[in-house]
Parts: sequence; structure tokens; C-alpha cells
Amino acid sequence: MSELRRDPVTNRWVVIATERAKRPVDFKRSFRSTAKESDCPFCPEQEKEPPLASFTEKGKSKAVDDPNWVVRVVPNLYPALTLKEKISGLNQAGPYTSLSGVGVHEVLVTNRDHEKELGLLSQQEVCLVIEAYLDRYLTHKRNSFLEYMLIMVNHGREAGMSKEHPHAQLFGLPLVPSNVVEELIGVRKYHQKTKSCVYCDLIRYEKEQKERIIYENERFLVFAPYASRAPFESWILPKRHQPFFESLDQSEQNDLADALKTVLFKLDEGLNDPPFNFYIHTTPYKDHYNGLFHWHLEIYPRLATFGGFELGSGVIINTTLPESCAEFLRNFFPK
Amino acid sequence: MSELRRDPVTNRWVVIATERAKRPVDFKRSFRSTAKESDCPFCPEQEKEPPLASFTEKGKSKAVDDPNWVVRVVPNLYPALTLKEKISGLNQAGPYTSLSGVGVHEVLVTNRDHEKELGLLSQQEVCLVIEAYLDRYLTHKRNSFLEYMLIMVNHGREAGMSKEHPHAQLFGLPLVPSNVVEELIGVRKYHQKTKSCVYCDLIRYEKEQKERIIYENERFLVFAPYASRAPFESWILPKRHQPFFESLDQSEQNDLADALKTVLFKLDEGLNDPPFNFYIHTTPYKDHYNGLFHWHLEIYPRLATFGGFELGSGVIINTTLPESCAEFLRNFFPK
Repeated sequence: MSELRRDPVTNRWVVIATERAKRPVDFKRSFRSTAKESDCPFCPEQEKEPPLASFTEKGKSKAVDDPNWVVRVVPNLYPALTLKEKISGLNQAGPYTSLSGVGVHEVLVTNRDHEKELGLLSQQEVCLVIEAYLDRYLTHKRNSFLEYMLIMVNHGREAGMSKEHPHAQLFGLPLVPSNVVEELIGVRKYHQKTKSCVYCDLIRYEKEQKERIIYENERFLVFAPYASRAPFESWILPKRHQPFFESLDQSEQNDLADALKTVLFKLDEGLNDPPFNFYIHTTPYKDHYNGLFHWHLEIYPRLATFGGFELGSGVIINTTLPESCAEFLRNFFPK
Repeated sequence: MSELRRDPVTNRWVVIATERAKRPVDFKRSFRSTAKESDCPFCPEQEKEPPLASFTEKGKSKAVDDPNWVVRVVPNLYPALTLKEKISGLNQAGPYTSLSGVGVHEVLVTNRDHEKELGLLSQQEVCLVIEAYLDRYLTHKRNSFLEYMLIMVNHGREAGMSKEHPHAQLFGLPLVPSNVVEELIGVRKYHQKTKSCVYCDLIRYEKEQKERIIYENERFLVFAPYASRAPFESWILPKRHQPFFESLDQSEQNDLADALKTVLFKLDEGLNDPPFNFYIHTTPYKDHYNGLFHWHLEIYPRLATFGGFELGSGVIINTTLPESCAEFLRNFFPK
């Protein structure tokens, strides 16, 4: 019999449909994508756009357009949001409300190598990517009209990737997006009831139970969430209560790089390059939350398709047991 | 510059990204799916499961397994939810809450013809499908542990369809799903402020504005929602305030069949058989909402992929103008 599980932060339900259960290994793809783009505008010496910033092996470069870049930030050619000097407030027309699309939309090319997604980079290279995330995060924090910066990655066509050269996208938004609001509300409600942080409590419980743990190092824990929405969904959390992504210190950056690289490498090798998204949820730029939030990174593999049930109900049917997926990844050691 | 639009019921934001705007005709597919399943278990004379009910040209048959069926209800072979005599309440384990997967999961084979999705059926045949929806809806209303019945359709592989023979799925749920709760809350808040129904107000405004209307007949209006989440998203609403789907009378059933068939036919012919989902949102079985809700049917074409932005933020980027999509469908008259 299947089971409905409730996410302890958002209170959203997931159906773990054991009648349809698949084994983790059933999600292994039979081949890797071999499509190659010619004229990739993100490859070295084919760059089309002047960058906004460059990062070399040594960190952020003083030269905006450094030819020795390892990570490179460029504007999105088709931005979903754009910066304007003047911003208007809410516009009203009959029963409808709109806001002009003011914001930031940048692309962070995460390596020179067209083939190497994050999981295949060296620890040092992933550290540099995180340094670049932090740099852009802090750069835009100065824009007073931005409420939130969403850092995210699309890997694979099924995950919405449009350029295959590994990259992240950064969206500076004039509002706090609803999924983050939902988590903030959940965190606050839990705190009102228990006086503790729900994410800290989850970390403690998962470490006791062990069955959903995928990986851990000194400062980070990776586990499959109890109410996983997707096969192999994985959350990376700092073990100490840390509201702000931007307050990572150097050793935390190292451990985050290690945790992120390890789980993405396990996914890549264990399932043969599956499509996935990941994104960071952190306290909004303007903190009205008294440090209650606990920032984290959510990896969402795209191995199932939403149907009318998911779209109509907001409840997701997951045909795998999170515990089996965690066990598979935990015990999978790529050669 | 792009525009953020807020849904007046759920308050969710959508980015209408005009910088990336596509013309409606750009979504036309170059070919129709021609894959054929052999041994379709939904085709006449190949039926594998005994049905739960049959509907012939004359309506519901007294014979459960009527060989002259036009619409046929069968259990789902891999049910996400199953009926049990005893149900337990919420289970708690540490910080986690679960519920056993008690419920109903049925398949409604909507025609004998393997090729004919709803948009290609006769008016009379679509009426029969709606009669079957209503019959199953009311049948399960008697189950006191069911809180909601979601009726939905997946058409096309990208929409999560697993069997190509046209069918609907019915999910009887032990809880009111979050997307419905969100709309109920929206309706209630709007009513507290204005003393009127938000959907009734939208109908009035859309009829004045005309630019988002796709189709209308005496009793139903079809329009592209202002904050459309997908290209060609279409809502079908009864013009009179009607909280309960199940209170449709015969002439309303006819008009609903006409509206549904017309918009699905326009989609099919105008865009060459695009994948889509649709589902019905109505007042939950146990009405604690004082008739405030206004039931409706939402059609959600699957012509774009969610990326990490959508999954991480809950905000959707739509690269089409709802007004252009509505104009395209409104003015498209298949031969």
C-alpha cells in the first residue's frame, strides 16, 4: 500500500507509490547524451558577450575580461528580468496586478571545459564556482530593489537546459518567490511551536536514523528528504544553524564544494548522467526573519514527468522510496 | 521588458518574458505522434480488466460489463491509492507525519476508438464522458473518508501519458490537495474583501476586455488566464456562480461538452496535437466553504519545460503573451 508523506517544512504531501515502485537501478540511463553544439558561445575563444566578471584559479580577477578565466559571468542574452534605473510599483488593471520585470538575470559559466559538469570538476574548481556564487550574491545585495537572489542550475535537456556548456543562472528578483515564502512560513510556525529550527531538528533526526543519509563531512549533511518529490532528490544542509548562504567561511566553502561534488558525481556515475536541477534557498536579502531560516541546497533529478495529477493537485506521486535512493547513492562509490 | 503578473486567486506570480517571446504559431509541432501500441488493454475486445462500470450511447448501462460500451471505467492496475476497510489516522515518526495511501484510483476509457482524444469526438460522445465523470464523482462522494476527487487527463507523453488510448484518471483523495486549498483560501480572502466571487468578477472583466477570450457559449466561458503559467493555458468556467461540479444540469453538461470539445479541437488542429493536461477544481466533498468556490476546468498544454528557476522559486516563466495565445485560438477555425 502506498503512503502519503508530509514535508515537515512546507506541509506539502507526496504520495510514495510503492505499487508502482521502481528500484533505484531502474533509473540508470542506457546512454549518455553525446549531442555536441558547434559554436558554443561559452567555450574559451568563442565567447561572444563581454563578461561581467571573471574568476581565475586564484579567485576573482581584477580584469573583468580575463583570458585565463575558469569561471566567467555573462549577461543572459534573453533575460527574463532586466535592470532599469526607475522602478514602478504594483500596477493595477481591473482585478489584475502586475509588476514590471525588473531584476537581474546572469549566466555563470562554471568551467572552461564544455563537457565537465560540477560533479566532474576538481574540488578546487568547485570551490571557485562557490566563490563566484557568493561574489555575485553579494554584488547584487547592494541593489535595494532586489528581494531575493535565486542561484540555480539546469543540467540536461529534460531539466530545461538550453545551452549544454555547464553553467549556473542567477536571478535577482523584485519579490521573494513563493516557494521560499512557503519555507519561511513553515520555519516560523515550527519555531513558534517548538522554539527550535526545523532543519536543525531534521539534521539531528536523520543522523540518528541514518537510512536517508547520502553523504556527510564535517560541516555538511546530504540526505534524501522524507517526503522526496523526485527519485534521488537530495538536500545539502550546513550542520550548524546558518541563516545566510553568504556567511559561509572558507572551510565551509570547502566542505560545501566537497559535498556538492560528491553527490553530483555519485548521480552522474551511478545513473549515467541523469538530468537534474539544483537551487539554493536562503534568507531573503532583506531579513525580516530574525535568523530563523536555515539555508540549504536542493538537488532535484528529473527522472519523472509531472502529469495532470501533480499539476492539478500540487501533490506529487513519487514511485521510489527515498530510503532506497539514499542507500543506492550512499553505497555507490564510483571508480 | 518582461512583466510579472499575479494570479488574482492564488497570488502566485508568473514572469511573462517578452524578451524571449515566441509567436503562437512557433508552438505548432511539425508532426503528429504516430507511435502505436500493440495489445492496447483499453481497446474493444482486448480489455483485460473487468470494468467497474460501462456507459453506452444511452448513458450508464445496467450491465457493469456492457460489450457495447462507449465509455468504460476500470481500476488502475498500478494504483497510487487503494481502498481499505479500515483507515488509520495520521502516523507520526520523529518530526515526520504520514497517512496510509487510502483512496480511489480509476481509469475512465473515454471512447472505443484508440485514436480519438476528446477534441475529436462528437458532441454527443463528449456529453457521455461528462456524464461518466459525474457518475464516478457522485459514486465516491458516499465514501466518508474521501475529501476530494480529482478528475484529470494526460494527453501525450510529455504530459505524463502512459497509455495512449484516450482516457481520464480519477483520484479519490483522503485530503484536499494543496492547489485546491490555495484556491479556496484565495476565494475566501477575496470574498471577505469584496463580498463577491473572484471567478465571477474575472468572467465579467474578461467579457468586457475580450482580449483573452478563446470561446464562449450560453453557459460557459473559455479564456486564457491573465497570469497564464503555460502557452495556451485555457480555463473553462460556468458563467453562473456554481460551487459544485456535480450540480451541472443537462443543458450545462451540453454546453460544457461543447466548450471543452471546441477548445481541445482548436488546440489539436491549430498546434498539431500538442501534449496537454486538464483537471477539474471544485468544492471539496465536505463543503466547509459555504458555496464560495466556483468550479472550473483548467487546460494546461505542455509546450515548455520547467527548469530550476520554476522548481526553486515556484514562479513560472512563460515565453508567450496570454493575449496572443487567446487570439490565435479564438480566430482559429479548423476546417
